[in-house]
Amino acid sequence: MKGRKDRTTLAILVCVIALLGLPGSPVSGEGGPKISEPSRECLECHESVTPGIVADWKLSRHARTTPGLAMKKPELQRRVSAKKVPEGLSGTAVGCAECHTANPGAHKDTFEHVDHKVHPVVTPKDCAVCHPVEQEQFSKNIMCSARTNLTDNKLYQSLITSINGVQSFNKMKLATGEPAPATNEDSCLVCHGTKIGVTGKRIKDTDFGEMEFPILTGWPNQGVGRSNPDGSDGSCAACHTRHRFSIATARKPYTCSQCHKGPDVPAYKVYMVSKHGNLFSGSKGEWSFDKVPWTVGKDFTAPTCATCHMSLIVSPAGDVIAKRTHQAGDRLAWRILGLPYAHAHPRSPDTSIIRNKAGQPLPVTLTGEPAKAFLIDPKEQAKRRGIMQGVCLSCHTSDWVEGHWARFESTINETNQRTLAATKILLAAWDKKAADPGNMFDETIEKQWVELWLFHGNSTMLASAMMGADYGVFAGGRWQMSGRIREMHDRLKLFMENKPKKP
Amino acid sequence: MKGRKDRTTLAILVCVIALLGLPGSPVSGEGGPKISEPSRECLECHESVTPGIVADWKLSRHARTTPGLAMKKPELQRRVSAKKVPEGLSGTAVGCAECHTANPGAHKDTFEHVDHKVHPVVTPKDCAVCHPVEQEQFSKNIMCSARTNLTDNKLYQSLITSINGVQSFNKMKLATGEPAPATNEDSCLVCHGTKIGVTGKRIKDTDFGEMEFPILTGWPNQGVGRSNPDGSDGSCAACHTRHRFSIATARKPYTCSQCHKGPDVPAYKVYMVSKHGNLFSGSKGEWSFDKVPWTVGKDFTAPTCATCHMSLIVSPAGDVIAKRTHQAGDRLAWRILGLPYAHAHPRSPDTSIIRNKAGQPLPVTLTGEPAKAFLIDPKEQAKRRGIMQGVCLSCHTSDWVEGHWARFESTINETNQRTLAATKILLAAWDKKAADPGNMFDETIEKQWVELWLFHGNSTMLASAMMGADYGVFAGGRWQMSGRIREMHDRLKLFMENKPKKP
Amino acid sequence: MKGRKDRTTLAILVCVIALLGLPGSPVSGEGGPKISEPSRECLECHESVTPGIVADWKLSRHARTTPGLAMKKPELQRRVSAKKVPEGLSGTAVGCAECHTANPGAHKDTFEHVDHKVHPVVTPKDCAVCHPVEQEQFSKNIMCSARTNLTDNKLYQSLITSINGVQSFNKMKLATGEPAPATNEDSCLVCHGTKIGVTGKRIKDTDFGEMEFPILTGWPNQGVGRSNPDGSDGSCAACHTRHRFSIATARKPYTCSQCHKGPDVPAYKVYMVSKHGNLFSGSKGEWSFDKVPWTVGKDFTAPTCATCHMSLIVSPAGDVIAKRTHQAGDRLAWRILGLPYAHAHPRSPDTSIIRNKAGQPLPVTLTGEPAKAFLIDPKEQAKRRGIMQGVCLSCHTSDWVEGHWARFESTINETNQRTLAATKILLAAWDKKAADPGNMFDETIEKQWVELWLFHGNSTMLASAMMGADYGVFAGGRWQMSGRIREMHDRLKLFMENKPKKP
Repeated sequence: MKGRKDRTTLAILVCVIALLGLPGSPVSGEGGPKISEPSRECLECHESVTPGIVADWKLSRHARTTPGLAMKKPELQRRVSAKKVPEGLSGTAVGCAECHTANPGAHKDTFEHVDHKVHPVVTPKDCAVCHPVEQEQFSKNIMCSARTNLTDNKLYQSLITSINGVQSFNKMKLATGEPAPATNEDSCLVCHGTKIGVTGKRIKDTDFGEMEFPILTGWPNQGVGRSNPDGSDGSCAACHTRHRFSIATARKPYTCSQCHKGPDVPAYKVYMVSKHGNLFSGSKGEWSFDKVPWTVGKDFTAPTCATCHMSLIVSPAGDVIAKRTHQAGDRLAWRILGLPYAHAHPRSPDTSIIRNKAGQPLPVTLTGEPAKAFLIDPKEQAKRRGIMQGVCLSCHTSDWVEGHWARFESTINETNQRTLAATKILLAAWDKKAADPGNMFDETIEKQWVELWLFHGNSTMLASAMMGADYGVFAGGRWQMSGRIREMHDRLKLFMENKPKKP
Repeated sequence: MKGRKDRTTLAILVCVIALLGLPGSPVSGEGGPKISEPSRECLECHESVTPGIVADWKLSRHARTTPGLAMKKPELQRRVSAKKVPEGLSGTAVGCAECHTANPGAHKDTFEHVDHKVHPVVTPKDCAVCHPVEQEQFSKNIMCSARTNLTDNKLYQSLITSINGVQSFNKMKLATGEPAPATNEDSCLVCHGTKIGVTGKRIKDTDFGEMEFPILTGWPNQGVGRSNPDGSDGSCAACHTRHRFSIATARKPYTCSQCHKGPDVPAYKVYMVSKHGNLFSGSKGEWSFDKVPWTVGKDFTAPTCATCHMSLIVSPAGDVIAKRTHQAGDRLAWRILGLPYAHAHPRSPDTSIIRNKAGQPLPVTLTGEPAKAFLIDPKEQAKRRGIMQGVCLSCHTSDWVEGHWARFESTINETNQRTLAATKILLAAWDKKAADPGNMFDETIEKQWVELWLFHGNSTMLASAMMGADYGVFAGGRWQMSGRIREMHDRLKLFMENKPKKP
Repeated sequence: MKGRKDRTTLAILVCVIALLGLPGSPVSGEGGPKISEPSRECLECHESVTPGIVADWKLSRHARTTPGLAMKKPELQRRVSAKKVPEGLSGTAVGCAECHTANPGAHKDTFEHVDHKVHPVVTPKDCAVCHPVEQEQFSKNIMCSARTNLTDNKLYQSLITSINGVQSFNKMKLATGEPAPATNEDSCLVCHGTKIGVTGKRIKDTDFGEMEFPILTGWPNQGVGRSNPDGSDGSCAACHTRHRFSIATARKPYTCSQCHKGPDVPAYKVYMVSKHGNLFSGSKGEWSFDKVPWTVGKDFTAPTCATCHMSLIVSPAGDVIAKRTHQAGDRLAWRILGLPYAHAHPRSPDTSIIRNKAGQPLPVTLTGEPAKAFLIDPKEQAKRRGIMQGVCLSCHTSDWVEGHWARFESTINETNQRTLAATKILLAAWDKKAADPGNMFDETIEKQWVELWLFHGNSTMLASAMMGADYGVFAGGRWQMSGRIREMHDRLKLFMENKPKKP
């Protein structure tokens, strides 16, 4: 029991101090690396103004090492990808000022603060001073375009209106207003990312007297596709949570669950009931989440989201099983989320440019024909499938992996067929004037259609991909798909039966 | 890996024993404080009769210290709030008898048990011997009235009937019976609390021969608003689980999830997908959950439910950020749960006294007008908002906090507007005889209305309050709100279209 | 904080090494038991081919001890139940070859692999070499028949068709195809288990040249009722996950959640919001999950699924509270899952033989009459209730347990009454031609009926059994049951109102 353990630990500490000297403090300034003068100035006040984030930063690797030391690590162990780090940054901890005063000219949110040009919004370009490869890869990750892919797509805009527009009911008529910016920022854009603007400055009364701060719009936000005041897109803090920026946090599925748990993308839920998720939940206390590279069987005994989708994985013998990537598409042959039909992954992270044969900004037509010019070809699919299967093969035989994959692709195919059946009912409903295609997402039969593919189709395919069985059956899967199709059918039938009776 | 660690621990134990002597046992009686004679008598039998709870108690602070020692702690570290503890209790552990024989005269459930006047149901008044401030605060917490606020409100009674009454179907007619007491105790009152009565005594055959015990009604129960046989309300064990009564348990969100996870109040779910919940899940192994006071950045690096709503929080420098409160309303400007419209928090924990303009026991009329006389005023709201924001500000800048709060209050406002639209449809349905307002909660259109505000409105506002985005969108949020409104509209429309055709 | 702890641990390791000599490595071959020659040959290649599972096995007890040593343990601590283990197996670790080459003649999947007769699919009969009692018990567990109970029941087959058959919509008509085998294997059978067949052999190109492997159908799978190529049923790996086969994993509720979390059987969800689940979540870091026997109050302070349903539990004094069983029915008086009415547990694990009075393969008629000949009698129910209550009584008084049980059985009774009301509506709908009983599960009113008992009835009874209150109210419980009944009623009423108007 821990009670006993804690006492033991105390006793041991005494004995260890005697044997080894003082226990090294994790806090910079007490045995850690030097802190730059500007960062030390920040800390002087912020240690009392925002003590929580200062304490969090002190626990970070940024506070405990320097870029110079970090670059001396053997290549596979290295966490910085820059070939060279600017002279002034090399010998001190990565503190407040190193990030919040980087590239001041590019930052519209830069303001004079106690004699420093500070910006509140730290961006991927700021991180790229030391981590340029990761930033470059991430800029090609479809997630980096999560905001613009949503806001620059007319169809998605009408989906947003059907969700975020406020309804009113007067004289027996239902009407829907336009979504307020604050509402979009409080809902879709929390994950997709806001556009952060700077509209002026204002004086605030602080513990240290009056001070001037920029007025930001779209703030706060740390959505993955945020548009930043320095012109960059994305937010590293979406996964590498401030101010510890811990790789361990990013590797745990809880981080992914922030945005990938709801019925529209229940990846986390599916993972958690899979054998892999079971082992994670039960064994994570024994795993090492912060080792680079990450060794299968030694640092972990079952994959997390990061293992399969992003991390640098090696075998116990040190052989590279999968290279690190921040462009998650590298390992994805199929896109099974968020759209009426699963399809080959888009070529470009900017999906707002896609037009299907009907001219809609969708990668597949409503009757299931993919817009091939915008999607990767079978050869590229095979390559990506190979990279992903390489991860599987570190624990499973090729028979196992192939058998699993055959079922997965069969399920993709069948899910698309179900979506086709539902879509045909919807097209008939529009044709028979049972619904109005003006906004494709706001009437009951349309909402049933959306839930069919957005909730239940995705759930079914994710359950297949990760072996979280019931999410493909009763937990929002095939049972619900067949139910939605039946309800759509019944609704159309009722409309047709009632219709002729009208004069 | 832990396997290695376990062996190491064993080895270390050997070495530590050699260096420091015997490893102190956590169990009272082996190096711990003295146990009173009555408690020792209890333990003699109960160590074999109910070994699990005895073992649990031995792990508790109650078993490891004495009220006398506890009162000598510096004020901020003190866990007892009594100015003075009765003489006889000061020098021994807080054992079985100390609680189960306290205030025997007040307890209707007191019975003679092996020469002691024992009561099975330990109550807040019993705990108040050492923790009077907590008991006093909790008595003003709306949760302490959770039972009576439900059972003494006629409208809620009809809601309960619509849920717990058993339906029957005969001759094409649906009928609903009255809820059985056992059913209410097995459902709503598990969390809200039962009324515990004493209806007599009975003889039972035990391992120690025949013994007499009181016959209790409403037992077992540990609901937060339980009515106790000593006339008190509440159950400390709802959160400070018996028999360890661990502050660590109460501070973890799992405790809150017992009652605050379902669709009617998905606070736990929202928290868990928030950045805060992500950090809790991933970092909790490094946190100290039992320190008093609780230091931000040192004992924890992201808030749990308790942090924001109840706990005594200090900065690493020891400055008090928020005072401990067991009256959670102290930090709540708005009441966003459980009712058709969000509104300023009620003044009194007894909400059964509230009457809106229409005379209903609701804090807001069906068309959205608050019963201001019963609710706190904007000044008090500002004060409470300030206390809560004080917690936020230990990690976030004032810009961040204000931006967040502006969105939250905008979402409260918009959610109320959506509820108004739905309610207008319901009022029209009642007016047109499409539904019967006799019981407001039992017909399909009424149930859609209830789900709109009770499930989806609450979810949307909680998602905004805690930044658990998808719970305000697809995971039971705005998508479902607009869906419910549309379904209510369709149902009324169908009724109106079919109606004129009748003779 | 852990950072500090890790450093401390490192320091301690140094000191412990000095005091005690080398820290024993958990890895076989480095201080562990001897590995057999065949297993050593396996490891030679598979350490690089499938390093993850080799590493996982090295952490297992199988790799760290031998059957010979295991049999020398005192009886209560023993994990092997064989009276005698074959001579050749006694002195070496249980490695790859020990399991994958056991009983080669019985295995249709046996193939020649590097001079060994290897089979990929390890089965309960293979495990029974050392664990015969567990295999024997499990063969009588209803879960061992999970596949055949589903596939050999005609009614369930039509349920599967309504879920897994792909719909199409043409000329305003909805049609449903037959489920594909791959679809069943990707959904229901993931948990229930597939039938694994051997259809031939094929040559594969491997890192070690061309090799021949068997072609398996129904693979991969580790469903609990899998039918194996050696004629046995079941998969121990369903719970004792390969290749660590950890008892700790099996005892944690995450393992059960793989199949028991969805709306059709939300046992895990209910548990997690119960007081027991709360304590598990918050205290599990202090518990010992791998001790045999498992001591209440010492190794754990609240039950997991395994505690109540399977594990060997003893008191701190060493008294047996509950014997280990792999036939979970031993502790179950009622069957509250998966069927229209709760009923006494079936006598035989093979439920496909059951016929109710109407000749249907169901343990209860549609109007609620149990098929008593196939179900245990009240005396056997009382015995099983007693075993389960024995576990409760290690922490709770008899008053508590009896009060809880009275509510539980009242809820079983009432849930059955609600199901009866819904079924009467369905029978009326069939009678009035509002629905077609051809497939009982595929029309909207039928699906509402299924959700009533399969989702909400089960949830309500589980919530009662484990005190996870809201799962019996708003979280898929009585609120939804009354809602489904009302919707079925409304649908039938609408049909009846529209019908007479037709010519």
